[in-house]
Amino acid sequence: MPSPDKVLAAVDSNLQPALDRLFALLRIPSISTDPAYAKHCAEAAEWHAKDLKSLGFKAEVRKTAGHPVVLGHRPKKGAPHVLFYGHYDVQPVDPLNLWHNPPFEPKVVEIEKGRKAIVARGACDDKGQVMTFIEACRAWITATGDLPIGVTVLLEGEEECGSPSLPAFVKANAKELKADFGLVCDTGMWDAKTPAVTSTLRGMVYEEFVVRAANRDLHSGVYGGAALNPNHVVAEICGSFHGKNGRIRIPGFYKGVKAPSEKQLQQWKSLKLTEKAFLGPVGLKSTIGEDDRMLIEHIQSRPTCDVNGIWGGYAGAGSKTVIPAEAGAKVSFRLVAGQDPDAIRKAFRAYVKDRVPKQASVEFRSYVGSSAVAFDTTSAPFDAARAALREEWGKAAVTIGLGGSIPIMHEFRHVLGLDCVLVGFALEDDRVHSPNEKYDLAAFHKGMRSWARIIGKLGG
Amino acid sequence: MPSPDKVLAAVDSNLQPALDRLFALLRIPSISTDPAYAKHCAEAAEWHAKDLKSLGFKAEVRKTAGHPVVLGHRPKKGAPHVLFYGHYDVQPVDPLNLWHNPPFEPKVVEIEKGRKAIVARGACDDKGQVMTFIEACRAWITATGDLPIGVTVLLEGEEECGSPSLPAFVKANAKELKADFGLVCDTGMWDAKTPAVTSTLRGMVYEEFVVRAANRDLHSGVYGGAALNPNHVVAEICGSFHGKNGRIRIPGFYKGVKAPSEKQLQQWKSLKLTEKAFLGPVGLKSTIGEDDRMLIEHIQSRPTCDVNGIWGGYAGAGSKTVIPAEAGAKVSFRLVAGQDPDAIRKAFRAYVKDRVPKQASVEFRSYVGSSAVAFDTTSAPFDAARAALREEWGKAAVTIGLGGSIPIMHEFRHVLGLDCVLVGFALEDDRVHSPNEKYDLAAFHKGMRSWARIIGKLGG
Repeated sequence: MPSPDKVLAAVDSNLQPALDRLFALLRIPSISTDPAYAKHCAEAAEWHAKDLKSLGFKAEVRKTAGHPVVLGHRPKKGAPHVLFYGHYDVQPVDPLNLWHNPPFEPKVVEIEKGRKAIVARGACDDKGQVMTFIEACRAWITATGDLPIGVTVLLEGEEECGSPSLPAFVKANAKELKADFGLVCDTGMWDAKTPAVTSTLRGMVYEEFVVRAANRDLHSGVYGGAALNPNHVVAEICGSFHGKNGRIRIPGFYKGVKAPSEKQLQQWKSLKLTEKAFLGPVGLKSTIGEDDRMLIEHIQSRPTCDVNGIWGGYAGAGSKTVIPAEAGAKVSFRLVAGQDPDAIRKAFRAYVKDRVPKQASVEFRSYVGSSAVAFDTTSAPFDAARAALREEWGKAAVTIGLGGSIPIMHEFRHVLGLDCVLVGFALEDDRVHSPNEKYDLAAFHKGMRSWARIIGKLGG
Repeated sequence: MPSPDKVLAAVDSNLQPALDRLFALLRIPSISTDPAYAKHCAEAAEWHAKDLKSLGFKAEVRKTAGHPVVLGHRPKKGAPHVLFYGHYDVQPVDPLNLWHNPPFEPKVVEIEKGRKAIVARGACDDKGQVMTFIEACRAWITATGDLPIGVTVLLEGEEECGSPSLPAFVKANAKELKADFGLVCDTGMWDAKTPAVTSTLRGMVYEEFVVRAANRDLHSGVYGGAALNPNHVVAEICGSFHGKNGRIRIPGFYKGVKAPSEKQLQQWKSLKLTEKAFLGPVGLKSTIGEDDRMLIEHIQSRPTCDVNGIWGGYAGAGSKTVIPAEAGAKVSFRLVAGQDPDAIRKAFRAYVKDRVPKQASVEFRSYVGSSAVAFDTTSAPFDAARAALREEWGKAAVTIGLGGSIPIMHEFRHVLGLDCVLVGFALEDDRVHSPNEKYDLAAFHKGMRSWARIIGKLGG
């Protein structure tokens, strides 16, 4: 096994240029869900392709039905070949007024004494994380002239809107994407001192529905008391998803969900995750999940339902006496192993339709449908990652589940037949998807070092 | 009694100049609820004061705590003195994309064969209506050199946000506002062929509440299943106001509400208002009001509750996996005689607070609180108005209740001690408060003629 010392030294001495490169990437407002930012998505893709080329990758920007993907190859004869996945797109930035600094003007800020962080949209998710891997490759090449493994890098631009175009791209290019296993950097640490390897990911169904009643907005003084108000219909539906015990009331929702094994339960218990530790920092006190489950189950292994957006009528300053013609909501479900996204979508739509009065209509829009994924935690790459993380952090890595989804993992598992090792350095206070998103400078630095070690072990 | 023939001829021959004046007023975007339009409210007030001066009124723009009022006097010795009330402010125009024409660029449009209408925000409510009275005064002065009655005109600029400043103004200037009775033009016809005099108005309580949970927006993939989602809280509350039988479930809400008299019930029944006639034109089929009441009761004499706005999380294009830090709603109640606005507000707030989980907070904002008003329908001015309307429209005027509120009527009744005669020419399809608000050209023309006749009878 090649010694990583020279490579780690290269990481350390190149922190500032690495940061400069990340800042250049963060300045590109590559918001994927809003068509107004399409050219910036293309710009971010071009930026990555150019950067990969500078590392000796055969890299290019490839078209998809949506935003392009970046694909780069650096094969190595006789060595294991990995497929690294990440994304260059970011979430919208609203509410903009809550940002202390413009979201696309990255800055290093001292967030508490001795703790610095990179603040910008995408600082963590996923630009900062992706660059920990790419900079680790750069350090290997700088220090040793080569990488000890073959690498294909696949970066997409639609992760934040459910990766609608990538499955087709993966299917069409399965041969080119052939690898021994996958590596992903889009997940988090267990806590600031404890590294983690993620082995399961929840799936997701994301739906929008709009209820329409009158053929125009009505004056509530004239029509109030007689005219159906879509705000009431949408509110009644969205207010009814959860029962008093925290269970989701859509019929059939829990079909296929399995009880955890005793061993799994013991591992969860040993992590001793408390409401105070998890919810306290965001100003909350107690979990709203099912009464008879541990908090860690609510966020990792139980399916969920969240109304991500609700709207109808007048939301501006002051008062307006309107009965709106329409109202709507965006609702997402996190799915666990055993749940079928199509069945969940059907059950959700039936539940909503049942509650829309006959004189109104309802229209649905579908954004995402992906099932949960579980990877083999007994394979050699998992062992290599855990060993490398222990060396870097001085503490054993825990194996966890991801509450969120990385939609394309389903195709990596089932189309490409890959087990993936998901290692990331995000922290719970990174404000991912929120104003003032940040990535600890230490996470960025030790993240690069962690990948440098993992790459070394994989090549050994 | 002076013959109105010359006056009616003056109305007819001056329709175009009257329309030109109304258009000038409609071009001023005097939206009262949004502070950004304050200068336009002042502009509309100045326009009216100048116009009233041209008619020999001693008129001026007077300060209040909010938007100014226009006050003009044209006394006449030995004749009855009336206080005419109207408002120069208008509702917001959103959703702007639904307007076929810019809302502040008035236009006469042929809406169906032989039926023309003035289209603009305020065309009906209340600029068009106010000008029917002022143009009728102008016609009297043009045709006879004088008005047969004394007139004080009081135009306010905050009716659309609940008249917060006018009660204090009325109290402070009660002596100056002394009159024998009030006249108001801010109500509607029974139908396009049947004139109406309005004798009761519902009161209103308009409240906003905001529920706050986490101290920032959260990623639903990370926190979903554990973190309290304010969208769910607001939805559950707003979806629970109405019971299955259409009754409002806030405890004590119906306290003080009286059953109608047998005579009143008979009058309502004789009007034969059907769901098809009232709701059909706006695309609805059936009333959502209490099961055991007639439709006309729902819209005139029963108290109501409407969620006028609801918001929380992401409402833009595409998907965003957010658990918002806050969500809110605007809720209004129409009150009937016997209901106390303060008691209703308290009951509403208690109802909401009961349903906000302890780890969240709720903040309330109050916009309007006014009680219902009933005027004497046996007075001489009522008889004069009904007789004049019968002559103009060839059909007896019906006496109705207004589902909406004109907040200041409470002070006219209880502070100034005035009975008011409310006559207006709005139609149910005028899209008041909605995009493409209109006022039939015939309503404008016959409205002026109606007032010309009423003024004549009052002066007789």
